[in-house]
Amino acid sequence: MSETHPRHYCGVFGVYGHPNAAELTYYGLYALQHRGQESAGIVTCADGQFRVHKGMGLVSQVFKGKTLERLKGSMAVGHTRYSTTGSSHHRNSQPLTVDCSKGQIAIAHNGNLTNAAQLRDELELGGSIFQTTVDSEIILHLMARPSNGSDNNLVQSLQRIQGAYSLVIMTENELIGVRDPHGFRPLSIGKLDGAYVLSSETCAFDLIQAEFVRDVEPGEIVIINDDGIQSINAFPMHPRKAFCIFEYVYFSRPDSIINDRGVYGVRVNMGREMAKETAVDADLVVPVPDSGNCAALGYALESGLPYEMAFVRNHYVGRSFLQPSQLIRDFNVRVKLNLINELVEGKRVVIVDDSIVRGPRARRA
Amino acid sequence: MSETHPRHYCGVFGVYGHPNAAELTYYGLYALQHRGQESAGIVTCADGQFRVHKGMGLVSQVFKGKTLERLKGSMAVGHTRYSTTGSSHHRNSQPLTVDCSKGQIAIAHNGNLTNAAQLRDELELGGSIFQTTVDSEIILHLMARPSNGSDNNLVQSLQRIQGAYSLVIMTENELIGVRDPHGFRPLSIGKLDGAYVLSSETCAFDLIQAEFVRDVEPGEIVIINDDGIQSINAFPMHPRKAFCIFEYVYFSRPDSIINDRGVYGVRVNMGREMAKETAVDADLVVPVPDSGNCAALGYALESGLPYEMAFVRNHYVGRSFLQPSQLIRDFNVRVKLNLINELVEGKRVVIVDDSIVRGPRARRA
Amino acid sequence: MSETHPRHYCGVFGVYGHPNAAELTYYGLYALQHRGQESAGIVTCADGQFRVHKGMGLVSQVFKGKTLERLKGSMAVGHTRYSTTGSSHHRNSQPLTVDCSKGQIAIAHNGNLTNAAQLRDELELGGSIFQTTVDSEIILHLMARPSNGSDNNLVQSLQRIQGAYSLVIMTENELIGVRDPHGFRPLSIGKLDGAYVLSSETCAFDLIQAEFVRDVEPGEIVIINDDGIQSINAFPMHPRKAFCIFEYVYFSRPDSIINDRGVYGVRVNMGREMAKETAVDADLVVPVPDSGNCAALGYALESGLPYEMAFVRNHYVGRSFLQPSQLIRDFNVRVKLNLINELVEGKRVVIVDDSIVRGPRARRA
Amino acid sequence: MSETHPRHYCGVFGVYGHPNAAELTYYGLYALQHRGQESAGIVTCADGQFRVHKGMGLVSQVFKGKTLERLKGSMAVGHTRYSTTGSSHHRNSQPLTVDCSKGQIAIAHNGNLTNAAQLRDELELGGSIFQTTVDSEIILHLMARPSNGSDNNLVQSLQRIQGAYSLVIMTENELIGVRDPHGFRPLSIGKLDGAYVLSSETCAFDLIQAEFVRDVEPGEIVIINDDGIQSINAFPMHPRKAFCIFEYVYFSRPDSIINDRGVYGVRVNMGREMAKETAVDADLVVPVPDSGNCAALGYALESGLPYEMAFVRNHYVGRSFLQPSQLIRDFNVRVKLNLINELVEGKRVVIVDDSIVRGPRARRA
Repeated sequence: MSETHPRHYCGVFGVYGHPNAAELTYYGLYALQHRGQESAGIVTCADGQFRVHKGMGLVSQVFKGKTLERLKGSMAVGHTRYSTTGSSHHRNSQPLTVDCSKGQIAIAHNGNLTNAAQLRDELELGGSIFQTTVDSEIILHLMARPSNGSDNNLVQSLQRIQGAYSLVIMTENELIGVRDPHGFRPLSIGKLDGAYVLSSETCAFDLIQAEFVRDVEPGEIVIINDDGIQSINAFPMHPRKAFCIFEYVYFSRPDSIINDRGVYGVRVNMGREMAKETAVDADLVVPVPDSGNCAALGYALESGLPYEMAFVRNHYVGRSFLQPSQLIRDFNVRVKLNLINELVEGKRVVIVDDSIVRGPRARRA
Repeated sequence: MSETHPRHYCGVFGVYGHPNAAELTYYGLYALQHRGQESAGIVTCADGQFRVHKGMGLVSQVFKGKTLERLKGSMAVGHTRYSTTGSSHHRNSQPLTVDCSKGQIAIAHNGNLTNAAQLRDELELGGSIFQTTVDSEIILHLMARPSNGSDNNLVQSLQRIQGAYSLVIMTENELIGVRDPHGFRPLSIGKLDGAYVLSSETCAFDLIQAEFVRDVEPGEIVIINDDGIQSINAFPMHPRKAFCIFEYVYFSRPDSIINDRGVYGVRVNMGREMAKETAVDADLVVPVPDSGNCAALGYALESGLPYEMAFVRNHYVGRSFLQPSQLIRDFNVRVKLNLINELVEGKRVVIVDDSIVRGPRARRA
Repeated sequence: MSETHPRHYCGVFGVYGHPNAAELTYYGLYALQHRGQESAGIVTCADGQFRVHKGMGLVSQVFKGKTLERLKGSMAVGHTRYSTTGSSHHRNSQPLTVDCSKGQIAIAHNGNLTNAAQLRDELELGGSIFQTTVDSEIILHLMARPSNGSDNNLVQSLQRIQGAYSLVIMTENELIGVRDPHGFRPLSIGKLDGAYVLSSETCAFDLIQAEFVRDVEPGEIVIINDDGIQSINAFPMHPRKAFCIFEYVYFSRPDSIINDRGVYGVRVNMGREMAKETAVDADLVVPVPDSGNCAALGYALESGLPYEMAFVRNHYVGRSFLQPSQLIRDFNVRVKLNLINELVEGKRVVIVDDSIVRGPRARRA
Repeated sequence: MSETHPRHYCGVFGVYGHPNAAELTYYGLYALQHRGQESAGIVTCADGQFRVHKGMGLVSQVFKGKTLERLKGSMAVGHTRYSTTGSSHHRNSQPLTVDCSKGQIAIAHNGNLTNAAQLRDELELGGSIFQTTVDSEIILHLMARPSNGSDNNLVQSLQRIQGAYSLVIMTENELIGVRDPHGFRPLSIGKLDGAYVLSSETCAFDLIQAEFVRDVEPGEIVIINDDGIQSINAFPMHPRKAFCIFEYVYFSRPDSIINDRGVYGVRVNMGREMAKETAVDADLVVPVPDSGNCAALGYALESGLPYEMAFVRNHYVGRSFLQPSQLIRDFNVRVKLNLINELVEGKRVVIVDDSIVRGPRARRA
């Protein structure tokens, strides 16, 4: 709804050690669909062979018919990408897969790097060639460089990049989860029938009935292989947390738990706080569905004002919707939301949408 | 959600006398999309020439690119069809168009006839051939028969059919609205810039900013042409009304006005009535979104119980969704709705969905 | 190639009594693909139930994946339609299927009626409604009328229509082949493993390895059912034959046999005749591939001139080919055919294409 | 037809300095369609910005609607890829485009490298990551390496690779044509309205009415920029030519000129030679269309035997053709070619197809 939100929020998902890895990833991505509708992709690994299917559109559009059956293997990584203008190309869809001296690697990335341009220049001067315009390719190039002295150049690679990233990385025998030292983007660990699952949000665990174990900590690398799960603190000197508030306000689903707090409850409390801080003299509280539902509920509870769902949302707005000619003014709003006039006529209304953190707005209908 | 609802609810729409007839019908159908997602179609008339475009899928999928531009004319009729199993064929999509001795006729039908099989047999014995399995073709055959003595065999045709029907019919120079004598299905009249509009629900008028004039009355035929609007009472001996309660409970959008009552308000009151009639000792009220939202609100208001939106709905469920293998139990529910456990754990919960009229249900989480 | 050829040549095909009826029809239509590339359709009958699949495009585009498997039954009728501008709609694709008092009927029609408009008016006055603009629907309406005294109103129906028609008709228990009294369009009978096959051209029998039995005679109706094959002379007073010469010259494949003569041989002889009749002083004979190949060969043999295939045809011209901007002159010719200049430079060349019957053309390169 | 032909023949095309570069490339690729039907792609450059469109299928399927209009620029490179089993993926379609320290580079490659595996291993050890499995990516990695002392590491890169390659390379300001020192694959230079054109075969020049200038010589690099055309001999010590005979026999179109000899004439002469070398006692010569047409003509001329086009080819065989069940034997042959029995019955027939160079075959029908 708001064009000022940071764009780079996506959904990442991974499975290690389950015979239905592709299918679980499909449902996982479906539960994360709200984090990105532009493209979807799954890469599986069976007997050291990677199998890829990616496409533009919703998870249910990209994976049809026999597609999932062809994605054999007990390890998988998946990605849903948010729609951004300008670089909406098939080749930018994720997970990215490459061959390098370390073998095959697939990466799914939620976030955006702040020093991408500088790293890219540096790598190109060293002879690297780039085939996409997504940040994540830089991480792969760093990982592919010859190791200098150490076994693992993943840690070295991460220490070069700055910005927000939650990563799920698949090699030929490991599934790796990474969260940046600030913990800007969420990433959680789950278990299902002895298999490990990684997901941007816990709501995906509910769908596949996996058990939520814990969050990946900011700055933590978790490496999952046949020996179990291993944790590396990649940034021992970096204790600061800076979780992105938009995850609670806007990005995440209300049924997810992030940093041990349920998103629904956080939103209701935000609405309560807003009611305390503002002394709007009003007759009723109206949410802008669906992102404003919880905060409006909190506002109503705190203020004692009646709660009316006076906006009706049309659930069939698609990306292919034709733009109207001049004959219909304000069309973009009306096509998504219609106000029930009889509910608000002559009333003083508090309208609550996801912009709540930027200050309360009270409108008179 | 419930398989026991009658299936034959569709959306019908018509425009007379507007240069953007096809475009208005497109937006009208879009506002009526909740009444049918299986197929969509628009027929326009320009200079006595009908132009047709129909297809399987959502309005925004069927009408793409230049399709609307080709549908020239100031008169149009449109239809969205509900998904039913078994007869989901392109050739059954509406509006139906035929040539007959009266010229070209297009018909959009919401409802289902109860004496269809008998009329069909009778017509076939007389030499009629049928190309679809939809009821509406029977009405066309009746209308196409040679008139016996009277000018208008529409009235005679209607007196032969029984059941539920709201019709929008387009001939080469008239737009006709018809509602069965029981008024089972809604049909309303609107005006926009001097043009007349017919729609299954008034929410479509809001979107195109047309003015709501009045409902077509049960048993009424309205004929719109260059002389204005004319009303015929096709069933003068038939005063009974039997409006379908499901229109209020389930089919219609909460922002529509039917029989002079807003659907939102009717639903809230149903929730209130339910709270009065049942004495459930509970801790909170939870709606099944979105169809249970209003009634749950009414229930909460009347009972004084807290209202919590503990079900989170996934808006990306599509018709092409792959069926899961056995590994996920209760998948069909989970894929649409996820319950936020922390909200309901240990609580006594009243869950309100659209089944409210069939009796209240109280569940313990 | 030539816009002056009559347009209504299509391919029709039928199978009675073979467990793979749909599959055989698919290959039959594929062999008849040169008779029509606009649309393709197959209707089968299993246990009295018709199953239909039709679509725009080539046979191999319309029938994909599991489509054929769903077309169960041991009886089938198929059709490929020639591309004509203006009425290229899905609803005009064949076979047409209807329900009437005689039950279900499917019809595939090659030809065009000359009294269609008059019959249509007459039928509409009697109450008939039309859903397509194809002639074939008229035949169905005639067949669906109540029988007056006689068992079979197919003969009566045929006596009403005029023009060119070869028909394959499927009822719930019979496959019927019909050829107009002039024999304008071909229709042949074949046998395969005890099953009967009807086809516009015998080249389809070769593909499915059916045995060519004989042509349907002009004015003959053949009725195939469990009792075998029965022949009716529908026009006993109508002895004249007027076979369309274009079938030999242009429409049919050179490997087909029509009216007991092979098309290849007829074309070679036409080339010979042309060489005899014209005394062109030339250096070589060049066919316009592929329609001019045989006649040019005949011309070369008769004249003693060398035969050079100086035109190279691009086999990848598709219907979706983009029209070039002004920068390329004569594009439409060049994109299909390229002349090898070194072969014709300074030579006097006889170019033979399918227009041979309209008079020989000699061109100097 | 024959599975033993080397697979890696593709079509490459390039334009420098024409306002309709994308459109010319489209027609150029269309004329080269016989060299590859699996995928097609065009990359243009306008003001230093590359624009890419690639897809699976024929040129006319990949480029539709407004696609060409979006490919702005006066420089373009295009590619059609031959269908090979196993690696038929979108990401392997060409031209490949990358960003590197030299800026953007696009490459279209016809041929295959014989030391690809070894070079790839070496590059990966140095930190290179690969995103495709096509040879051409190796060339890009070599070109992207830091230059050691010399201005141009294209020459150095070429000296590392072995095998067959004709390349069209586009940088942000140059179009480069390269042919391997053996000249295995053809590549020709043309001019049109002051613009330069590069093409695998000269038949593409005929279509766009460009003038054929000369072949790129084996081992030659031609660099086209605003200063005109410059030639570099990349392999001064490498005088040997080893042109692939299959280009004459099978790959190229008969209307192309390769190494100063017309393909049509070469094929006719091959047929003549074959007739001289073999003393088959036969009644007639029959080509397998279309690849055997010319050689059979030569055979007939030399031997004095009659030439009959007894095989009829079905031009509608598509890649999506359904495989038949067991009921039809020898289907794959019959579906493409049908033999006119009356022409060959009881005759001794010489059948000429493209396998002529592997020795003549005489078959008795």
